[in-house]
Amino acid sequence: MTLAEYVAQQQIRVDEALQRWVPEESVLPESIHKAMRYSLFAGGKRVRPILCMAAAEAVSDAPAGIESAACTLELIHTYSLIHDDLPALDNDDLRRGVPTCHKVFGDAIAILAGDALLTLAFQVLAQMDCPAERRVQLIEELSVAAGTVGGMIGGQVCDLEGEGRRPDEALLETIHRAKTGALLRASLRMGGIYAGADKEQLAALSCYGEHVGLAFQIVDDVLDVEQSSEALGKTAGKDAQQKKITFPAVYGLERSREMAEEERMAAHLALRPFDERAERLRELADFIVHRRA
Amino acid sequence: MTLAEYVAQQQIRVDEALQRWVPEESVLPESIHKAMRYSLFAGGKRVRPILCMAAAEAVSDAPAGIESAACTLELIHTYSLIHDDLPALDNDDLRRGVPTCHKVFGDAIAILAGDALLTLAFQVLAQMDCPAERRVQLIEELSVAAGTVGGMIGGQVCDLEGEGRRPDEALLETIHRAKTGALLRASLRMGGIYAGADKEQLAALSCYGEHVGLAFQIVDDVLDVEQSSEALGKTAGKDAQQKKITFPAVYGLERSREMAEEERMAAHLALRPFDERAERLRELADFIVHRRA
Repeated sequence: MTLAEYVAQQQIRVDEALQRWVPEESVLPESIHKAMRYSLFAGGKRVRPILCMAAAEAVSDAPAGIESAACTLELIHTYSLIHDDLPALDNDDLRRGVPTCHKVFGDAIAILAGDALLTLAFQVLAQMDCPAERRVQLIEELSVAAGTVGGMIGGQVCDLEGEGRRPDEALLETIHRAKTGALLRASLRMGGIYAGADKEQLAALSCYGEHVGLAFQIVDDVLDVEQSSEALGKTAGKDAQQKKITFPAVYGLERSREMAEEERMAAHLALRPFDERAERLRELADFIVHRRA
Repeated sequence: MTLAEYVAQQQIRVDEALQRWVPEESVLPESIHKAMRYSLFAGGKRVRPILCMAAAEAVSDAPAGIESAACTLELIHTYSLIHDDLPALDNDDLRRGVPTCHKVFGDAIAILAGDALLTLAFQVLAQMDCPAERRVQLIEELSVAAGTVGGMIGGQVCDLEGEGRRPDEALLETIHRAKTGALLRASLRMGGIYAGADKEQLAALSCYGEHVGLAFQIVDDVLDVEQSSEALGKTAGKDAQQKKITFPAVYGLERSREMAEEERMAAHLALRPFDERAERLRELADFIVHRRA
C-alpha cells in the first residue's frame, strides 16, 4: 500500500469513529450538532489521529479500537480551530476552504460548539472500550496537552499576546512548543499508551512527536507566506498581516526550510528503537515536511 | 454544627482544593491563570461541590479526597458562566457582584479561560487519588452532564433559541432539566460514585438531585424577578428583558413559589433510603428553596 492509500484508509477509519461518537444532526438541539459536524467534516486532513494510529501500530500490530482514542485528537483540534477563528481571537472567515463555523452558525453557537467538542473528547475517552487504567492515562495525557501550562491553550495565549512584538527566537519556541507541539506530541504518546508501549518506546514516540510537531509548524508558517488562500483552504498571509511571530519572520524563509528538514531527520533518528513497524511514521514525517498545502 | 457553619467549612475545603489544582497566577502565561482565578474566586457559593460532598457523606463517613472530585463541578460551572456572560451570548457585565471575566480580561482571554477551566476539570478527575475505574466513571458522568444531549450545553442552546418564543411548559422543562438540572444531578451522583454508592443509593441521589435542581432553578428565576442586582450580585431582571422562558413567565410568581416548595418536599422523599447521614442533604434542600439571593 502506498502512503497516499494508507492515509486515505486511515482518514476513513477516523471519520467512521467520529460518525459513531458525534450525535447525528437530527438529535436535539439540532443546531449545535449541525455546527459540530459542519466543522468536523469540513475536510480536515486528520494529521493527529493518523499519527496516533501509526504510533500504536509501531508498538503492536493494528490494535483494535484505536480509532476512538485517535478521533478525540480531532475533536480537540477542531474545537481549537473554531474558537481561534472567532472575531474575538483571529477573526478568520475561511477554514479548510469553507466559511468558518461562526460565519455560518453565529458566534454564540460557534462558542458552544467548541465547548461541546472539547467536552465530547473526554466523554469518548471515558466510554471507549479499553482498560480503565489506560483510559485514565489517555485522559490525563490529552487534558494536559490541551491545557494552559505548556499546552495548547497556553500557546494560544502567548501567540495572542505576542502579536506585534519583536520577533524573538525564545518566544517563538515557547509559542509553538505549546500551541501545536503539545497536541502533536500527545497524538504520538496516546497511540503508544493505547497500544501498551514500554517506557523506552514512549520516550522515543515523544521525541519523534516533538520533532514532527516543530517541522509541521515551520512548514505551516512557510506555506502561509508562499501559498495562495485557495491552495491552503484558509486565508493566506494572515500571519504577516497580524504581525504574528512565525519561523519565516524570525529566521527568514530559506533558513526556515532548512530547519524543517533538520527536524524531519531528527524525527527519523528518534524512531531508531523501532523496527519496520514504524515505517509509516517515517513516511509521515517526510510527507509533513514535503507537503504543499 | 449548624448548617451555616457546615456550609462555611465545606466552602473552605472546596476553595483549598481549587487553590491546589488551579495554577498560580505567576505561572506562565500569567493572564490566563489570572482570568481563571478571578472568576473562580469571585465569591461563588459552591452549591454543586457542597452537594457532591454531602452526597458522599450520606453514603459513607467523610470519604477522604472527595473535595478534588467536588471542585471539578465548580470548574465546569465557572467555565459555563464565563462563556454565558460573553457579548455573543447573554452579554452580562456583572456576576457574583463583580465585573464579568470578559469585562476585565477581554473577550479572547475570557473564551480561553473558559476552555481552560473545562479542560482542567477532566485533568483533575484523571489525576486525583482514587481507583482508576472510579475516576473513569466520574469523568463519564461529568462529561455527559456538561454535554449537548440532555446536558448543560444542550440546555444553553435551547435557552438561547427559546428567547422571545411563547412561554411553553414543555420547552421550559426541557431547558432547565438540561441547563442547570443535569450538572446538579451529576453533583449528587459524583459524590455517590466517589463514596462507592450501591445502585439503590445512586438512584435515590439522582432523584434527589433532579428535584433539588428544579427547585434551585425555580428559585433562581423567582429571585431574578423579586430581588435587586445588588442583592443577587448579578444583573437582576435580565430574564424578562431578554424574554427568556422562565418559571414566573410560564406559571406566574405565586405558582412558581408553590412548585419550588413541592420540589423541596419531593427531594426529602427521595432521601428515604438514607439514615441520618443524609441530614445535611435534607437541610441543603431547605436552604436552596428558602434562600433570598
